[in-house]
Amino acid sequence: MMEPVRWRATGREPLPGKLCLLDQTRLPEELVSVELDDIEAIRGAICRLVVRGAPAIGCAAALGLAAVCQHSAAETAAAFLEEVSAAAERLGSARPTAVNLGWALRRCRDALDRARGTGADAAALKSVLIGEALAILEEDKALCRSIGRVGVEIFGARKGMRVLTHCNAGGLATSGYGTALAPIYAAHEAGLAPRVYADETRPLLQGSRLTAWELRQAGVDVTVICDSMAAALMRTRRVGAVIVGADRIAANGDTANKIGTYGLAVQARHHGVPFYVAAPYSTIDTSIPDGSGIPIEERDPDEVRRGFGRLTAPADVAVWNPAFDVTPAALIDGIITEKGILRAPYERSIEGFLNSRLPGRPR
Amino acid sequence: MMEPVRWRATGREPLPGKLCLLDQTRLPEELVSVELDDIEAIRGAICRLVVRGAPAIGCAAALGLAAVCQHSAAETAAAFLEEVSAAAERLGSARPTAVNLGWALRRCRDALDRARGTGADAAALKSVLIGEALAILEEDKALCRSIGRVGVEIFGARKGMRVLTHCNAGGLATSGYGTALAPIYAAHEAGLAPRVYADETRPLLQGSRLTAWELRQAGVDVTVICDSMAAALMRTRRVGAVIVGADRIAANGDTANKIGTYGLAVQARHHGVPFYVAAPYSTIDTSIPDGSGIPIEERDPDEVRRGFGRLTAPADVAVWNPAFDVTPAALIDGIITEKGILRAPYERSIEGFLNSRLPGRPR
Repeated sequence: MMEPVRWRATGREPLPGKLCLLDQTRLPEELVSVELDDIEAIRGAICRLVVRGAPAIGCAAALGLAAVCQHSAAETAAAFLEEVSAAAERLGSARPTAVNLGWALRRCRDALDRARGTGADAAALKSVLIGEALAILEEDKALCRSIGRVGVEIFGARKGMRVLTHCNAGGLATSGYGTALAPIYAAHEAGLAPRVYADETRPLLQGSRLTAWELRQAGVDVTVICDSMAAALMRTRRVGAVIVGADRIAANGDTANKIGTYGLAVQARHHGVPFYVAAPYSTIDTSIPDGSGIPIEERDPDEVRRGFGRLTAPADVAVWNPAFDVTPAALIDGIITEKGILRAPYERSIEGFLNSRLPGRPR
Repeated sequence: MMEPVRWRATGREPLPGKLCLLDQTRLPEELVSVELDDIEAIRGAICRLVVRGAPAIGCAAALGLAAVCQHSAAETAAAFLEEVSAAAERLGSARPTAVNLGWALRRCRDALDRARGTGADAAALKSVLIGEALAILEEDKALCRSIGRVGVEIFGARKGMRVLTHCNAGGLATSGYGTALAPIYAAHEAGLAPRVYADETRPLLQGSRLTAWELRQAGVDVTVICDSMAAALMRTRRVGAVIVGADRIAANGDTANKIGTYGLAVQARHHGVPFYVAAPYSTIDTSIPDGSGIPIEERDPDEVRRGFGRLTAPADVAVWNPAFDVTPAALIDGIITEKGILRAPYERSIEGFLNSRLPGRPR
């Protein structure tokens, strides 16, 4: 498995070290990593999608916060926490839709607050911060494995089932195994030989550049299609399931994910193809009752007009470029989590799922 | 209006001359024309989409046949017709889905057969051939104007109505005014200020490269979106209609058009947005009872893997690249023709429409 987000310690202790990101903007042409400990460089990497995918953004933000704050010259715990606070605000504003970004930063700050309550000084707080960030990273790996174990159920005993996915919710979007791709990897490991169709996912082609690349690395059968071909695929070939990731899930199950997900859900329902969202608990945001409250990022028109170094539209034509859309819960047949597949009515199943988690679960 | 297909006579008579094509592969970056009278060059131009769009392909094939056969050294009418026959077969095999290609070539050969029946010699047949090809071109212009006059009805008196279109079924796909874009141009001329959303239309981006370009040339308000954004558009902004062109319409109304059309139709139905196909009589193929009989062209995987001049997928990953899909008649709210908007049941309305045409209508 590739590691899109890592911590590279320069000695035996976690500190000092750097946030290490696989530069996903350069895949599949080049396999290049960058090492960062400057706040604007880290924020820029999140904005430019050097790292992307809700869980990976959360991990990168937490490790990035630790990388930046290790250099703090603050002499008191209070002064250190103020610096952490400012850095977290700056990183947290990098992208609006993925809930994991704010969630991971809040989790780090909660850990620091608890430690400060026990009298930790600035130096100790630096250790607490990197420790919490590494715990988020490790937890993410474990969550993805669990999602795979749970989600493989949708394959039943079917060999060679066709699965359609959108964007990249694989190992590159998490710290290893993926969310939407986790059940596929699990099915592959179980010898079920899944046949994956990957929407290329305009405008930034995370499907053809990233999903196709990582599935091939793992030896999984994959075919790339343009986003516009999904409906014809469902009509002319038997598709067993659509599985996508999520950037934020509201309390009622409405799900924000990469633009195009909603259209796929409409098409899947029309063709009777089960439509699944795969995500860990940290992607659920019960502070938002339904999808209408999820902020949707709109990105640079040039991603559409000249996304690949060539002008493919009139240079100054108007463009609408939302990065995400919201799929209403009514079109979702199940949400694959690390503890089971949630079913409608989602208000109830989501609440039960979150309550079932161990006490001490970060808010 | 631009002229994507023209005949350039070098003297006062139509012959000698050349087929002149606006090279649509180079738009919107460059406005370049090519002049052709060699059969392989003409066939290649159709294959490479220098000229594309069902009606324009028909016009180009007819004029191309005349351009090639003007150089015939045949001394008898029979020998000339054999050469025409061979050239028509070669041109007719350039692309499989658009019915207008075969239709226009057959119409030319029918005209030659009639002329031969009246005793025309090889020289006279050359004139008949270019005359028929020019008649097809002129008729196409008139048909597009009529489609515009008929189709503007769907705007009612609504100002600023949002219309979504896919691919390019505009002036560049015909010999001037378009099919799907004809009602939009007519609404624009009537002061109704339509607001057009153009799907970029992967893989070859005819929407962003061609539709957006030609609408802007005409002063029509246009916004480009990725194909994957159409469903979100329908959900978040009021879309008054979807209008698309057609490459072939079966006897029951099932319609082959650019890949992605079918998915749009599913999404339009889900959102209660009226879905229209616009096409002249020559796009209807009553020899095919329903869409299952329409041949669907599959094109080079590299259109998807490296369509922007840069590798955007693993170099040898599998790709499924159908150029068209079939929208079942049940999802089509109306077929806008030069004589009126046909409605379901289409078997009957199509038959009535074709019967209503003047006697002497080419088969």
